[in-house]
Amino acid sequence: MLDKSKRYLIVGLGLLGGKYALELTRAGYHVDGINRSQGHLQYALDHGYIQSGKTQDFEDLVAGADHIIFGLYPTTLIQWFETYGHLLKPGCIFTDVSGVKTGLVDQIQTLCPPGVEFIASHPMAGRETSSVEHAAEVNFAPANFIITPTEKNTPEGIAWVTELAQVLGFEHICTLSVQEHDRMIGYVSQLCHAIAVSLMCANDNTSLCEYTGDSFRDLTRIARINETMWSELFLWNKENLIAEIDQFDEALHQLRSALEAGDREGLEEMFRLSTQRRAAFDKKDR
Amino acid sequence: MLDKSKRYLIVGLGLLGGKYALELTRAGYHVDGINRSQGHLQYALDHGYIQSGKTQDFEDLVAGADHIIFGLYPTTLIQWFETYGHLLKPGCIFTDVSGVKTGLVDQIQTLCPPGVEFIASHPMAGRETSSVEHAAEVNFAPANFIITPTEKNTPEGIAWVTELAQVLGFEHICTLSVQEHDRMIGYVSQLCHAIAVSLMCANDNTSLCEYTGDSFRDLTRIARINETMWSELFLWNKENLIAEIDQFDEALHQLRSALEAGDREGLEEMFRLSTQRRAAFDKKDR
Repeated sequence: MLDKSKRYLIVGLGLLGGKYALELTRAGYHVDGINRSQGHLQYALDHGYIQSGKTQDFEDLVAGADHIIFGLYPTTLIQWFETYGHLLKPGCIFTDVSGVKTGLVDQIQTLCPPGVEFIASHPMAGRETSSVEHAAEVNFAPANFIITPTEKNTPEGIAWVTELAQVLGFEHICTLSVQEHDRMIGYVSQLCHAIAVSLMCANDNTSLCEYTGDSFRDLTRIARINETMWSELFLWNKENLIAEIDQFDEALHQLRSALEAGDREGLEEMFRLSTQRRAAFDKKDR
Repeated sequence: MLDKSKRYLIVGLGLLGGKYALELTRAGYHVDGINRSQGHLQYALDHGYIQSGKTQDFEDLVAGADHIIFGLYPTTLIQWFETYGHLLKPGCIFTDVSGVKTGLVDQIQTLCPPGVEFIASHPMAGRETSSVEHAAEVNFAPANFIITPTEKNTPEGIAWVTELAQVLGFEHICTLSVQEHDRMIGYVSQLCHAIAVSLMCANDNTSLCEYTGDSFRDLTRIARINETMWSELFLWNKENLIAEIDQFDEALHQLRSALEAGDREGLEEMFRLSTQRRAAFDKKDR
């Protein structure tokens, strides 16, 4: 397991950063924290998620860390790293929590000082809430932890982040390339959010609330969305998401054409395909 | 409450017809059944859902019924009524369970013999399963029961179907015009199903199953669909559904354009609107 003599640093004590801090501290590791706002840093200190923390003048914490976890949005992470990245000490292996990887991983890896390794990963834990105050409610066990190594990563780096995921309680750990990850996330997560948002925006449905059943509820649950995070994620994965939207739109237009033409057989064929695929999915689903 | 001396007849012992039979029998009414297949009729007899039943030569049951409930698809209901509608006795008040009303209600009301009243209604009970074998699992309490009266209906007819819904256990009973009902159902139910089906058809996602989270699961749950029933419902409500698909598509294209233009503010504005509408919905939601 991970070496307990190593010093951990969490940069960005949001929902996920906070949960990482909590779980690592629980497991007996030394964990420090850096956060922009004093309030959330104080919460993490008060609840024993971290042993010490700072909002500024934190160069000593950065230089002393054996492992860092960045709980920041991609844009913020790159800005932070451009300013403080040179402080990381040789031997430091670190990761992030970002939901998109293209354009982020290569940039950060290029900025890494000699002997410092960035092994990217993505904890696919649902988050309808945000902020460190809700960190303790997050359950990593059923979620996927995806590691996205590049040719710059070492077996040691991959082994470290794998063990980290285990300590955090993930039961499903897998590896994808940066490109595979972003294509996958464009379909299974971002396209779903794009659809849910569009469905809510399409119609001032206030008067329809009382008639909705499970289907509408299910399709729009994720339409409550953190606009800052999701616009960031969407824009970082723009090409993949646009391709997925177009592919979805093509299928929707196929259905619309069948409907307009009164083509019952065409509709039934789509319904059979969707039923068959969803049934296969239920079988594989945990 | 409903008069227990009256004879009830269920035509079409599927999931909903079966559940109506079961609940009316439980409540102490005399219930007979007509069904195309002997197997499901026998199931209803064996389980005491109906007192007697036939698959053919059922003219006496039709002529003797004070109230009939049609658990048939719209097309089948019209065909049945054209053949047997003249047998209904004066004073008979009857209803259906169909998910679309335009084109159906006026046709049946025009075909009604003198003194016979059709008061249409729609039990909005979710149904991922079908057939009488699953009827006992249906729970009407949280579902909406929608009555769609026309100018041909009488206060007595509306009172009868309202009481029927109460006996069946519906706690939410409301009234809409045929046009309002079909517009509403086009948005809250049919558009959702069209989206879920398109999402499954858009991509051979077999290899992605293991990476999906709650959002994808939620959006595609209703993609397992009874192709015969849903193609029928879609085609009967074609104009409304096409209008809803176009309105949804417009919102999706707005999102796509903002994405393509890198318009973060445009994206955030849509996310705020969807969040606000969904939050209002959660508040009203039962």
